[in-house]
Amino acid sequence: MFDKLLIIGCGLIGSSLLRATINKKLSKKILVYEKSKKYKKQIKKISSKIILLEKLDENIADVDFVILSTPMSVYEKIIPSLNKYLSSKTLITDIGSTKENVSKIKKTKLKKTLKWIMSHPIAGSEVSGPQYGSKNLFLNKWCIILNDKDKSNQKKLTRFWVKIGSKIITMEPNQHDKIFSMTSHLPHLIAYNLIKTALDFQKKYGKNIIQFSAGGLRDFSRTAASNEIMWRDIFFNNKKNMVQVIDLFIRNLKEFKTNIIKSQNSKILKKLKNSKKVRRQIIELKQDISKPDFGRDNN
Amino acid sequence: MFDKLLIIGCGLIGSSLLRATINKKLSKKILVYEKSKKYKKQIKKISSKIILLEKLDENIADVDFVILSTPMSVYEKIIPSLNKYLSSKTLITDIGSTKENVSKIKKTKLKKTLKWIMSHPIAGSEVSGPQYGSKNLFLNKWCIILNDKDKSNQKKLTRFWVKIGSKIITMEPNQHDKIFSMTSHLPHLIAYNLIKTALDFQKKYGKNIIQFSAGGLRDFSRTAASNEIMWRDIFFNNKKNMVQVIDLFIRNLKEFKTNIIKSQNSKILKKLKNSKKVRRQIIELKQDISKPDFGRDNN
Repeated sequence: MFDKLLIIGCGLIGSSLLRATINKKLSKKILVYEKSKKYKKQIKKISSKIILLEKLDENIADVDFVILSTPMSVYEKIIPSLNKYLSSKTLITDIGSTKENVSKIKKTKLKKTLKWIMSHPIAGSEVSGPQYGSKNLFLNKWCIILNDKDKSNQKKLTRFWVKIGSKIITMEPNQHDKIFSMTSHLPHLIAYNLIKTALDFQKKYGKNIIQFSAGGLRDFSRTAASNEIMWRDIFFNNKKNMVQVIDLFIRNLKEFKTNIIKSQNSKILKKLKNSKKVRRQIIELKQDISKPDFGRDNN
Repeated sequence: MFDKLLIIGCGLIGSSLLRATINKKLSKKILVYEKSKKYKKQIKKISSKIILLEKLDENIADVDFVILSTPMSVYEKIIPSLNKYLSSKTLITDIGSTKENVSKIKKTKLKKTLKWIMSHPIAGSEVSGPQYGSKNLFLNKWCIILNDKDKSNQKKLTRFWVKIGSKIITMEPNQHDKIFSMTSHLPHLIAYNLIKTALDFQKKYGKNIIQFSAGGLRDFSRTAASNEIMWRDIFFNNKKNMVQVIDLFIRNLKEFKTNIIKSQNSKILKKLKNSKKVRRQIIELKQDISKPDFGRDNN
């Protein structure tokens, strides 16, 4: 599909793209630019065919596809090199989790002749680094492609994601950021906040309560173990939507508190029952496995 | 260990106790009292040795161990039968998730001569009913035994839980309810509230957002699919502690909101990093498996 592909930033997502690309034979040559020494060692082990770049220079001039998979806060540091060495022949994409900000960066920082169409694969986990990457990470997962005027390149980008197993849907940046503030960003913030609250509680109470986490807290701790740089970037870049969903969440929680204080039986039962339907829908939509307790067995 | 054991209420927990008891040969005879016709059919399939009672009557007079594993709101309906037919020879326990309320019910409703020592196994999942029960449900899981003056019966109760694989810790009812309001009850309420918020958001936004749940929402939907009767009972019975942890959670969430609005980098990074330590601790304490994403693979 490509002669020369470049992955910039090769952690969990970048190395999974790398593995998937090698597995599907999608590029004759694969270049990787990664700053971490530890990550570089791990990347070398994936395949001897990978060309590790020491810097972004004239060697990248003839790549036909670039995937930016660094944290979003690094994009602005990378763009000057793209502006300097790339031409309109190269298709650029990124995998950032918010899109209005990236759209703005593109408009203000990227050379007008360059072609950048945004992607967002809905895949990942709480661990970071290339040792956890998988060629199957994108299999049957959504990849959001952001609508672009350049339909020919958009088609090419779509073909790439489809070849590594993704299901495609297109969105506008504002629509994307709104939807994922609710389905992804708020859940992560809530998990972080619950762990913060448990730590505060423990400090005040003076006893180890974390040892009793199997009652429910443990699930939140997994989500709250996600990469802090990535999530800081997301929260800061999706401010407007975050504030709205946080406010909606707090309003609902206060209502729940009233239901509890006043023992409002039918009101609370209705809510607790309704969420069971959502779980069923999520399983039917193949957004999760159906096994009780995620099929987890820690005996 | 026992001649005649009686399980009252035989859903996920009751049937797991039933299976564990059979597996470890802890009772010569096992009686089960369960009202649901559907559940009764499923229970019969577990073992032909089980004696299914149609009602609680003189047949229970000579049981030496009773486990109450109905929802807590049913306890008061069961107690008159225990008062009528049982004597001090029978050891009674329950598996309710809150203890101050059960302690009060015992004091006010139970005949003074009867022996009831409270238990709380920290085990379960989002599914209900005997078809999901497992003889290993309690293996390596905490079981809280509530301190009692009757040390001989407390020892006997401890022996029972140890034999089916539990790790034992003793607590006072108020201490128990405080700790589990944070490690179990608040996480469940928060999961229910997040799903409620997602439903409200979806209704207002007019598009199916649940299909993008793999970004994080799906984990909460599992917890929020838990049994509504059980969780209503817990929330209502642990009111005082629930209000406190909800307030603490809201205070922290408002602070997070401020961190986001004001782009307070170091403050937010510190919080996001700290929760990673909690995850590590939870895994070290064997409260969860270490596999990324719970070892889940929905491809």
